[in-house]
Amino acid sequence: MHPLKQLMNPGSIAFWGASNNPMKMGTIQLANVIETGYTGDIYPVHPSESTVLGLPAYASISAVGKTVDLAQLTLPTDVVPGILDECGRAGIRRAIVISGGFKEVPGEKGRQLEREIIEIASKYDMRFLGPNCVGIFNSHCSLNTTTIHSPPMGGKIAFASQSGAYTAMINPYLRAQGIKMCQTLSVGNEADLDLTDCVEYLASEPEVKAIGLYVETVRRPREFVRAAAEAVKVKPVVAIYVGGTEAGSRSSLSHTGALSGPDEVYDGLFRQAGVIRAADIDQMFDLLRALSSQPLAEAGRMAVITNSGGPGSSLAYHIEKAGMSVPTFSDELAARLDQVTGRLAYVRNPIDLTFETDMLIFKRLLEMVFESGEVDGAFLYGIFGGPDFMVNMVKRFPELEKLKEVLVPAHMKFLAELAEVPKTFGKPLVVMSFLGPETVSVGPLIDDGVPVYPSAVRSARAMRALLDYGRIRNSA
Amino acid sequence: MHPLKQLMNPGSIAFWGASNNPMKMGTIQLANVIETGYTGDIYPVHPSESTVLGLPAYASISAVGKTVDLAQLTLPTDVVPGILDECGRAGIRRAIVISGGFKEVPGEKGRQLEREIIEIASKYDMRFLGPNCVGIFNSHCSLNTTTIHSPPMGGKIAFASQSGAYTAMINPYLRAQGIKMCQTLSVGNEADLDLTDCVEYLASEPEVKAIGLYVETVRRPREFVRAAAEAVKVKPVVAIYVGGTEAGSRSSLSHTGALSGPDEVYDGLFRQAGVIRAADIDQMFDLLRALSSQPLAEAGRMAVITNSGGPGSSLAYHIEKAGMSVPTFSDELAARLDQVTGRLAYVRNPIDLTFETDMLIFKRLLEMVFESGEVDGAFLYGIFGGPDFMVNMVKRFPELEKLKEVLVPAHMKFLAELAEVPKTFGKPLVVMSFLGPETVSVGPLIDDGVPVYPSAVRSARAMRALLDYGRIRNSA
Repeated sequence: MHPLKQLMNPGSIAFWGASNNPMKMGTIQLANVIETGYTGDIYPVHPSESTVLGLPAYASISAVGKTVDLAQLTLPTDVVPGILDECGRAGIRRAIVISGGFKEVPGEKGRQLEREIIEIASKYDMRFLGPNCVGIFNSHCSLNTTTIHSPPMGGKIAFASQSGAYTAMINPYLRAQGIKMCQTLSVGNEADLDLTDCVEYLASEPEVKAIGLYVETVRRPREFVRAAAEAVKVKPVVAIYVGGTEAGSRSSLSHTGALSGPDEVYDGLFRQAGVIRAADIDQMFDLLRALSSQPLAEAGRMAVITNSGGPGSSLAYHIEKAGMSVPTFSDELAARLDQVTGRLAYVRNPIDLTFETDMLIFKRLLEMVFESGEVDGAFLYGIFGGPDFMVNMVKRFPELEKLKEVLVPAHMKFLAELAEVPKTFGKPLVVMSFLGPETVSVGPLIDDGVPVYPSAVRSARAMRALLDYGRIRNSA
Repeated sequence: MHPLKQLMNPGSIAFWGASNNPMKMGTIQLANVIETGYTGDIYPVHPSESTVLGLPAYASISAVGKTVDLAQLTLPTDVVPGILDECGRAGIRRAIVISGGFKEVPGEKGRQLEREIIEIASKYDMRFLGPNCVGIFNSHCSLNTTTIHSPPMGGKIAFASQSGAYTAMINPYLRAQGIKMCQTLSVGNEADLDLTDCVEYLASEPEVKAIGLYVETVRRPREFVRAAAEAVKVKPVVAIYVGGTEAGSRSSLSHTGALSGPDEVYDGLFRQAGVIRAADIDQMFDLLRALSSQPLAEAGRMAVITNSGGPGSSLAYHIEKAGMSVPTFSDELAARLDQVTGRLAYVRNPIDLTFETDMLIFKRLLEMVFESGEVDGAFLYGIFGGPDFMVNMVKRFPELEKLKEVLVPAHMKFLAELAEVPKTFGKPLVVMSFLGPETVSVGPLIDDGVPVYPSAVRSARAMRALLDYGRIRNSA
């Protein structure tokens, strides 16, 4: 079993650094473990308190009297080695060391302390994440050891990161986009377990459908390439790398204490491993959303279905700019589409329905273009905010209540059916919409795994990743 | 006076197409005019109703008995010419023709109808927007003639668009980003007033600090270049253009009925005019937020202040990738910064404060780097969600209420003071944060005109626009 499998799915946790002082980081982490609904045993270790956050507290790990699966240490740097040794003696074989002040700090003392904890862990065959990390979360066992209150857990995306901020602080952004993560690992200084271990572990997790990595340095390039090349045979890996410029490299050095290489070196490394490189954290999650939920694109021929010219033209433009095509439909297909669309529609691709609001037509057209074999994927713009609009309208015109009660469920049914079309045909669908995950109009679609972006450039980029990963997997 | 000045600031409006049927587009538009708080006179014209949405209705415009400033027509295509002629006879000199079914529709009939309304308008010296447009909004007179309920009106950004969706449907996206627009014009088919007129008009509006354009075609290239070149002497103009690929051009032709040109031609046109080109609608608004509110960057030397390595390294990387620099600070400046920062901070640029949460240090450091003359702008990451965190914490730990009552106002004061620093030094500030405009933690900062983005690439791109426009204005 992979050491991270046990670390991420512990049956019991011992906690150091949690107290009844709510302003302490350890307390906040423990409160999150409790509130997220973790069902394993929790043992706060505290020198003087008899209870911590309502749980019985223990003066030392030996007082627990049982073997515990995981230790999380949120303690002053100096006491970490001693406590880690106690953990080892008590039979704990997995740990998360949150504490900072090790190798990442200028000076010899931090480096020495880091060597010490590596030796202690090695002595007990203990494997650990950190130091200088922010914890993990894993929706499969409802475990959240970070300071972030109720992160958007779930879904099929996993993320391992050399940046704590990108692991923890990013959660409001993910929530606002409707993105969920099923597993997140903050690797900190990687004194023991590193990104390569995370790739190995996440590759073998069946619920994880796409892996994201934030990289400032790859400490074991050969092993990384080997692990990633294995992983991409079964699921896509997307990475961002920011060490490749002079200041980026200088900043990374002061952050992770590791030397980074030029962009080209990392481009080559990622290419060799079959890892897709994204420019930045937001773009990485854009790609992961599509890659974790949609069928792959076999080739680059794309349909655009829209009820508005601006987004339709923008999609057509950015699809081509991303190296894909928007082929003119055959006369045959156009004639068939013509029978479904209104008189004002342009049906040669983009299909522009102008003011069409009958959502079922969108679904029918999508099925027809997929059926035709003339495209390898499709983009859709034009899911009107009908339900949300009706909710607003009823406030002004109460007589519309009955109409709302018909339209809203009909829209929900449409969304559920629309989300099935890509699965039925094995071709990807990307939706462009200015409505967010909090709306009744597109929220359920996002929940059903159809990626929704508020711009053509983001939509096209996501589809391009579905094409790129298809090629990577075919050549793997 | 520019014809659009009167159209956008009417003292009275006559409305065709509004009734008491709440599912009609005209009704929704009129309801929005009323609800947005427009204080001019409103005259619904309706053949049979005696009141419309509670307002006295008129059987014809002649029955109003007064000269009205603006007509908005949301009517079946065929009756538009007749009503427009009635408007002309009644002395109306400005109109918005919402109705579609003109030149944008295949066939000769639509083209003929469009020629007819041009002739009618010309006969009466009437100027109009449309046909086939979605209306306007103008926060200065609280006027919103679109179907969008309470768009985010205000701020200093104006937008003129050949796409109705980008004018109206985009509003949920703008609201989610904390972006406001003070004036928006949907130009539709541009049978009379076009984008060039909009540029001329918006250039002369003192409250408008930045202009955005969505372009599928420029109908009068020479006049456009002249108008835009005049505009950019006083305020930035950002445009997106999507006609420049094969499918983009095909789509534009079916949408606006106008021929588009290759990307290079439009690149040249924009460059000649001093217009900044953005890739897509989301990126355009990213740039407009910064351009409408921040001082310009005189050169490309940038400071990065962060309390987290990942965002710091990402910013450093993307600043350089965007053609700017993150210079190492002088020993003198570093020594001065050292006196303010903690022992763990790296102060050579990026300044990485690691876990610093005392926000006042951020502000002090920003002032010091601006004061030093060693940079032309600054990026900041690390505004913790302190206030929002406290609100959450108080739910769990009621004893923290008192601390919250101290921390939240202190944070508000910090945000207000931080927003002043760029103004004081005449240098731009861009903030990276994963917190949105709805939060207490950064919301007030966004309201105060500091642009906040959830990624380094978006932050750097916005700063780059502040540098680019500075150069454009210097050479204008």
